[in-house]
Amino acid sequence: MRNRPTPAPFSLRSQRSKAFHRGVRPAFAESAERDFAQVRTGGADLEAMKTLTEYLKFHAKTHRAYIHITPQVEQIVRKSGVKEGMVLVSAMHITAGVYVNDNETGLIEDIDQWLEHLAPFRKDYKHHQTGEDNGDSHLKALLIHHEVIVPITEGKLDLGTWQRIFYAEFDGQRDKRVIVKVMGE
Amino acid sequence: MRNRPTPAPFSLRSQRSKAFHRGVRPAFAESAERDFAQVRTGGADLEAMKTLTEYLKFHAKTHRAYIHITPQVEQIVRKSGVKEGMVLVSAMHITAGVYVNDNETGLIEDIDQWLEHLAPFRKDYKHHQTGEDNGDSHLKALLIHHEVIVPITEGKLDLGTWQRIFYAEFDGQRDKRVIVKVMGE
Amino acid sequence: MRNRPTPAPFSLRSQRSKAFHRGVRPAFAESAERDFAQVRTGGADLEAMKTLTEYLKFHAKTHRAYIHITPQVEQIVRKSGVKEGMVLVSAMHITAGVYVNDNETGLIEDIDQWLEHLAPFRKDYKHHQTGEDNGDSHLKALLIHHEVIVPITEGKLDLGTWQRIFYAEFDGQRDKRVIVKVMGE
Repeated sequence: MRNRPTPAPFSLRSQRSKAFHRGVRPAFAESAERDFAQVRTGGADLEAMKTLTEYLKFHAKTHRAYIHITPQVEQIVRKSGVKEGMVLVSAMHITAGVYVNDNETGLIEDIDQWLEHLAPFRKDYKHHQTGEDNGDSHLKALLIHHEVIVPITEGKLDLGTWQRIFYAEFDGQRDKRVIVKVMGE
Repeated sequence: MRNRPTPAPFSLRSQRSKAFHRGVRPAFAESAERDFAQVRTGGADLEAMKTLTEYLKFHAKTHRAYIHITPQVEQIVRKSGVKEGMVLVSAMHITAGVYVNDNETGLIEDIDQWLEHLAPFRKDYKHHQTGEDNGDSHLKALLIHHEVIVPITEGKLDLGTWQRIFYAEFDGQRDKRVIVKVMGE
Repeated sequence: MRNRPTPAPFSLRSQRSKAFHRGVRPAFAESAERDFAQVRTGGADLEAMKTLTEYLKFHAKTHRAYIHITPQVEQIVRKSGVKEGMVLVSAMHITAGVYVNDNETGLIEDIDQWLEHLAPFRKDYKHHQTGEDNGDSHLKALLIHHEVIVPITEGKLDLGTWQRIFYAEFDGQRDKRVIVKVMGE
């Protein structure tokens, strides 16, 4: 950042941001200036906090697998009794991930091939000097990310129409776990 | 992991970690051993919990767009009255993302070109057999990630000097939504 | 999504999901249908909320560095007194990240080389027209992601056996900060 001025206080900074946007080509500018609306729901309520923690267990039959877990997460949220809050869904391993996207077979295969393309299996990862052979599994997990936070509104997962939660296994055929922690009121 | 010993209890494991670091080349070791300090602020306070949920609506005029939403998120946090907590900002779609980075026009164009390079439009994604043509939009959304959690301290977004929140649209020209859920005390 | 029907209510949608899965090749289907178990722990307790916020400071001697911070985060969680909750660990910069993976020297070098391969240093990023030279640092930070949320159970970080928290510096030799915000009961 060394070549840029220290920003002015926030109100001015947000004007600066607008100025930046005016300079952006239409692709960005139109969206930023025109296509914006805001809808309010609910209100700020004072409540006591609740938590519930459960663990999902997996043992994939294959080296890589993509497992739809929205129904299991939804069931845990229902059990928690939390009406407003968030649920953390996080792989407890360094060769697995959790992501939110479409539950569509073709896309899942596209994702698998794309991950293999960007984080390919190779014999010569330095990590393999430890005796491991799963360097690519670590990189795939970093790319897809190991955790998501899903909002809970009126006691339900507040997901978009097509959003589904997936466990992504990149080094399967062994026992793995995902922690599901519900926190809210 | 099959070729590696089960780790000792945590205290020993962290010694093991230090040993690992001693083995690391200077790039990692110096940083890990020397360049570390810690600053304490605030204290652990007991309070009742508050939540507020709002939805931001978008309709980008272009197929891809990067929209700066920090001011809108800040406004929702102010309205919530939450002084200490977190705000989840999450796209409710599988072809859009939310990320935190710089509000600088050139960089936004670099990000757009980089995403197209790593997750390019292609006719032959398996997902397209469903009649879709947006396989690349799903992959771009997975790469940038669909959600961020921003800390709230003393009633304000606790962002670094240059950090700004963006909605990234990868399949625009239709109605999209982002959920903003504030949770704290 | 224009070519796909609006989904039926959730119960039906999850049947649709199963149907999708039946169509998936064994790699996915077996995992989804067979390798699934659930373990319950703890219970949903009503408590008052606690938060604690601290900042970790870094000044890497090198341009890129990967610094293990699990012990520091654990210490902050202990100090907070939070028994059930989450801790947000988030870089306050746009050229640094925070991730969870293995504390293994070879893998850390693999990650560094992989990031340089997918988000290489280049002279010609548009961002450099501002006088910056760190366009690649922004892209590396977006790829690794700038924040993680770690669950806290029974007063401890609820990480898997090999999961460790790292600060990833992509534009070092200057002061940087990571916010650690504990929230729970």
